[in-house]
Amino acid sequence: MNISALLTSAGINITLSVALLWLYSILRKQPSLANVYFGHRLAQVRSKHHNPFCLDSLVPSANWIVKVWETSDEEIFATGGLDAVVFLRMVVFSTRIFSIAAIMCLFLVLPLNYFGQEMQHKQIPSESLDVFTIGNIKLRSRWLWAHCLALYVISCCACILLYYEYKSITKMRMAYVMGSRLNPSQFTVLVRAIPWSSRESYSTSVRKFFANYYASSFLSHQMVYRSDTVQKLMIYVRKLSCPSIVVVTKILLASSESDAEKIYKMLKSNPMDQHCGLSFMRCGLCGGTAKAFKILSSEPESANGRREFANPDLREKECAAALIFFRTRYAALVASQAMQSSNPMLWVTDLAPEPNDIQWTNLCVPYRLLWIRRTTTLLSSILFMVFFLAPVTIAQATAFQQQEEVFCLILSAGRINIMNFYVREDFDPAGYRVSTKCDIDAISIFTGTAIERLGKISSAKSIPNQLSRAVPSAATFFMTYVLTSGWASLSCELMQPFALLCNLFDRFFIRNKDDPSYGSYSFPYHTEVPRVLLFVLLGFTFSILAPLILPFLLVYFFLAYLVYRNQILNVYITKYQTGGLYWPIVHKTTIFSLVMTQLIALGIFGLKESTVALGFTIPLIISTLLFNEYCRQRFQPIFRSNPAQVLIEMDRTDEQCRRMEEIHQQLRSAYCQFTSTSCKPYEAVDLNANENRDDDRLQDPEDMALGDKSRAHGTQVEFSHLGIEEVNMK
Amino acid sequence: MNISALLTSAGINITLSVALLWLYSILRKQPSLANVYFGHRLAQVRSKHHNPFCLDSLVPSANWIVKVWETSDEEIFATGGLDAVVFLRMVVFSTRIFSIAAIMCLFLVLPLNYFGQEMQHKQIPSESLDVFTIGNIKLRSRWLWAHCLALYVISCCACILLYYEYKSITKMRMAYVMGSRLNPSQFTVLVRAIPWSSRESYSTSVRKFFANYYASSFLSHQMVYRSDTVQKLMIYVRKLSCPSIVVVTKILLASSESDAEKIYKMLKSNPMDQHCGLSFMRCGLCGGTAKAFKILSSEPESANGRREFANPDLREKECAAALIFFRTRYAALVASQAMQSSNPMLWVTDLAPEPNDIQWTNLCVPYRLLWIRRTTTLLSSILFMVFFLAPVTIAQATAFQQQEEVFCLILSAGRINIMNFYVREDFDPAGYRVSTKCDIDAISIFTGTAIERLGKISSAKSIPNQLSRAVPSAATFFMTYVLTSGWASLSCELMQPFALLCNLFDRFFIRNKDDPSYGSYSFPYHTEVPRVLLFVLLGFTFSILAPLILPFLLVYFFLAYLVYRNQILNVYITKYQTGGLYWPIVHKTTIFSLVMTQLIALGIFGLKESTVALGFTIPLIISTLLFNEYCRQRFQPIFRSNPAQVLIEMDRTDEQCRRMEEIHQQLRSAYCQFTSTSCKPYEAVDLNANENRDDDRLQDPEDMALGDKSRAHGTQVEFSHLGIEEVNMK
Repeated sequence: MNISALLTSAGINITLSVALLWLYSILRKQPSLANVYFGHRLAQVRSKHHNPFCLDSLVPSANWIVKVWETSDEEIFATGGLDAVVFLRMVVFSTRIFSIAAIMCLFLVLPLNYFGQEMQHKQIPSESLDVFTIGNIKLRSRWLWAHCLALYVISCCACILLYYEYKSITKMRMAYVMGSRLNPSQFTVLVRAIPWSSRESYSTSVRKFFANYYASSFLSHQMVYRSDTVQKLMIYVRKLSCPSIVVVTKILLASSESDAEKIYKMLKSNPMDQHCGLSFMRCGLCGGTAKAFKILSSEPESANGRREFANPDLREKECAAALIFFRTRYAALVASQAMQSSNPMLWVTDLAPEPNDIQWTNLCVPYRLLWIRRTTTLLSSILFMVFFLAPVTIAQATAFQQQEEVFCLILSAGRINIMNFYVREDFDPAGYRVSTKCDIDAISIFTGTAIERLGKISSAKSIPNQLSRAVPSAATFFMTYVLTSGWASLSCELMQPFALLCNLFDRFFIRNKDDPSYGSYSFPYHTEVPRVLLFVLLGFTFSILAPLILPFLLVYFFLAYLVYRNQILNVYITKYQTGGLYWPIVHKTTIFSLVMTQLIALGIFGLKESTVALGFTIPLIISTLLFNEYCRQRFQPIFRSNPAQVLIEMDRTDEQCRRMEEIHQQLRSAYCQFTSTSCKPYEAVDLNANENRDDDRLQDPEDMALGDKSRAHGTQVEFSHLGIEEVNMK
Repeated sequence: MNISALLTSAGINITLSVALLWLYSILRKQPSLANVYFGHRLAQVRSKHHNPFCLDSLVPSANWIVKVWETSDEEIFATGGLDAVVFLRMVVFSTRIFSIAAIMCLFLVLPLNYFGQEMQHKQIPSESLDVFTIGNIKLRSRWLWAHCLALYVISCCACILLYYEYKSITKMRMAYVMGSRLNPSQFTVLVRAIPWSSRESYSTSVRKFFANYYASSFLSHQMVYRSDTVQKLMIYVRKLSCPSIVVVTKILLASSESDAEKIYKMLKSNPMDQHCGLSFMRCGLCGGTAKAFKILSSEPESANGRREFANPDLREKECAAALIFFRTRYAALVASQAMQSSNPMLWVTDLAPEPNDIQWTNLCVPYRLLWIRRTTTLLSSILFMVFFLAPVTIAQATAFQQQEEVFCLILSAGRINIMNFYVREDFDPAGYRVSTKCDIDAISIFTGTAIERLGKISSAKSIPNQLSRAVPSAATFFMTYVLTSGWASLSCELMQPFALLCNLFDRFFIRNKDDPSYGSYSFPYHTEVPRVLLFVLLGFTFSILAPLILPFLLVYFFLAYLVYRNQILNVYITKYQTGGLYWPIVHKTTIFSLVMTQLIALGIFGLKESTVALGFTIPLIISTLLFNEYCRQRFQPIFRSNPAQVLIEMDRTDEQCRRMEEIHQQLRSAYCQFTSTSCKPYEAVDLNANENRDDDRLQDPEDMALGDKSRAHGTQVEFSHLGIEEVNMK
């Protein structure tokens, strides 16, 4: 490939991207597509009327870019939360470091590469791309010190930038923790593996244990129940509001009297469910069919035995897991960190997940089986990755022209597979997925370039050499990869083709006049973080080997900044906040890319027999690893647990402001197992006022349990983060 | 080598061992050698008079074996503590598993090996040893299922035995924790990286911080001071008791008035030192020379400013580390587990080491440098191991006859080096050293057998094959290794040649009539645990390959049981108790040996083209790894921290018995930085009564700081464990 071919390819891709952006600027003005391009805004302001059609909506404009550019970080934080801010910081970091790398490499390294051999140069447009890589430098050339210098500058700048990013994100996270005063998970501990006793129920055991050992701080507890048919039935009943009384009648007629009794008891057992139960009974009463319920509701309610089940039938449904609420955040932290019993596999405590992050079905898995599941998952993922290497190697064996498509295909396949694979198991979804995705991408790069001739690698010693031989030759491929896959993915992200097609299909074939509910997805961090990290890896590894890739990458990152900002502001809603928990993974992966770059450079310097450059690179690698270790010591603990000092201060402030009682009240109803609107438990009471609103806020909890949170489903889910904020404002 | 040669070798070694045991039974009766062979008993009963010489003491006897055999486990626990019991359990476990292995392999595997090939057998004495190894089995032999079965039986029995050992040791550890009611380290937290403030001293910062955030449970604190010349002077002064008044006078005359002031302030700052100070001043007064001290002692003592140094000179000597005493054990646990500040590198808390385990000079190392030190240590140990491989490979290249000596030499050299290497850095000495030693030994085995032809290994895939080819050929070598190094090491252990020589040298050349002080060493777990584990590894790997090694190993383990029991009962004193903390390392190493065995068997089955045996071995490996994972989950946390339930119960019992006040009082004087008799602080007051006893209990703290705890030094050290027990009896 020569320069003119590269420029042609770039031209085609630029034209395509500009065309798509242009199309987007028209489409976003169409009122009928508002739910595709303004899902987030619509979720906030549902009552707005559609604007009538006007000609102005067909004129393309760059207004949206200006708007996106002018948006402040505070607005991003208010819209997308800390996760969105951290994601954009990652993009900004990439832009910065590759700007520096571009300056260093285009003005220092590139000319040296070009004049590296004493040869007759052709005219630049018809020059081969290989002339611009480090491959063009002579053996034992004195100019390799320039590459070494560039490597030093890039590494140092990357480390300095990474340090300040980590520092500022840590600060933001602390502010986030201190700001989320009403986060119920801070007060709650999840206890598993409650020992079974024939004399008393799990509930009694839990109450006795915590009242005994945590007498001063124990507030209350909530058992986790196995979901069986009755509970499933209840979910269906709850999903239906009064108007659809026919279905309620049908369900009630179908269920036996004993089932009705179970439902009634279940409703009584939970304060949240009590409210729902009232409304449900109202439904039942207005239909006049639920005889069984009328009988049951006349039974007097026991005073304090609300959570106590003398009934062995209900006791059987208890899982060996419970949520324990404490009076203070610090007490919850303490209880979560200590090993409770002398058998470490009993009374296992951990800080509870946030109400929206909890997967109730997973909590019922016996703790002694959990480690087997974890081990199986780990083994399967290793096997998966091993078998994932094979197709990539096959792809390498095919012709270069076909390679790109195969590669992209495999990447996508890998993405889909890995998503299906992990989506059920994940408890801390963002973290787990991101890390696995990163691994997969890193491995695909690895295989795509380094293990090109797998059979030829004779010993571990020669791996750097093999890597360094393989990487420059792959530079051209990855340059086109950035041009096509990188830029195209951003346009795709902007256009939302899947949602667009769904919308069109819905409108023209089903002729659904209502606002369709798809379009409100949460930001796909699990695919976008690894994608950006893959380009960071590409950028680092090729920066001093083939600097021509850097301008294309810079364009990608700049475009990514605009596109993702726009999407966060307009399209995606925030279902779940990790509070920037995934930054350590980003940091680690960037360091991995950096060390990989240095190792490849080491190999190249070895091949070029430049001992001075070789000698100078080794301390650089050691320093980078030490820097990583330092950051791990200095910042990572903050992402693992909250500092005692901060929690104690928060507790004190709340006590001084006499807010604690209020928080304790809200705590009791924060976690609801048999409802999908976990953060707004009291809304269901006022049925007549909110029925429409509740209707489309409800989501099938079974879907949730199966983990189908991905955008492909298109079900609309409640915007929990906002929910928390609303509670905050009370 | 043939059978008769092996038997000759065994005969020689047996004769040697018996001769040494015979010699031992005579030597131990000599009153003049009592300090060599009864160091432990002498430490307990110092006043006993020497028996006069009698003829009976020259007659060899097996009495000691009977005595050792009859000793109960309770006596061992009372004498050597839990560590000794756990060590002997390891030996018992080895004896048990190799008894089973011997029965399986000698009666099932050995005959099959012998009749594996259709060949004319010679007479057994002149038969080559190779005929008894798995190498004699034909390709695709149907008899390999017997080897596979033996492997299954050995693995299953080993896992079952290991499980019950782990379980009972966990129980013992819990009993140990619950039994050590007056262990001051359970109440104490070590805080490091106290932030520096220009306005107040570290001491004030610490008091303010803990009084603020741990108001209900904070008892008091104790700063760590840098040891400088004044403090060294003080140590010398403290070491001298009143009779040697001439030296005191000299020191006092040499030191200036400002130094005297410093010493006085230092004495005032510590309750322990106050007592010592009084006695010291008494010394000064009776000499009548310490004018400076007389002046200073008239200064009125401030009421609560005992630990408060307005004097900037003393403030400068504070390190950024302190010991914090809490009212309850649980409070200390809680404080040690939480991350205190939003900067994880400030206010770093950890449970304090036991008073005898603390290395004060290490506490003054700034926390921000600690990770660099740790990383450097890790890197150096890796480098060390890499360079340790080289000589072993060279040893392999030499002739087989010379190999043994070189191997032993290198092993010993490795042992010495690793000891010198780690002895300064270790904070948790037993754990660190044992693990490193295990690694070294495992690696030496590895290199000695597997990487025999390092250059020939072409890819990672062939490593099991290489291993399986190399190991049977090395069987003969290791058989003689067990005979010589194994048995000899035990006789050596029993004879204590170094102490014996020192004693003789002392008596005949220096003509020292007093009881020499060497002979009271603590049990060298750091060399003996890896040694036993090395033989466990040998036993497992060769059990089905060359079963002839097993009888020799069984003799070794049986002898080891007797010898170590005897040494624990009579010779060694217990300076420091880990409470069986090293068992997880033993467990892990045994599992490693087991998996190694299975991998080698896998390779052998592959070589012999027995797909059935090959197929059956793979699930065995996976099951063994899963078993290890289960044990890690089930038992290991107990060895990392104490369960909250147990600590709370202990606190409650102590409160109900009104013992808490007493414990708090003792706590204040448990940790003394500037004294060598850390557990008996009040003894020094009564100078006249105890002077002789104190004199030889004192140890040079500088030696202690340098970590020269090894037996080579021969200085006598206080028996701290007994010290704790004495406090217990109060």
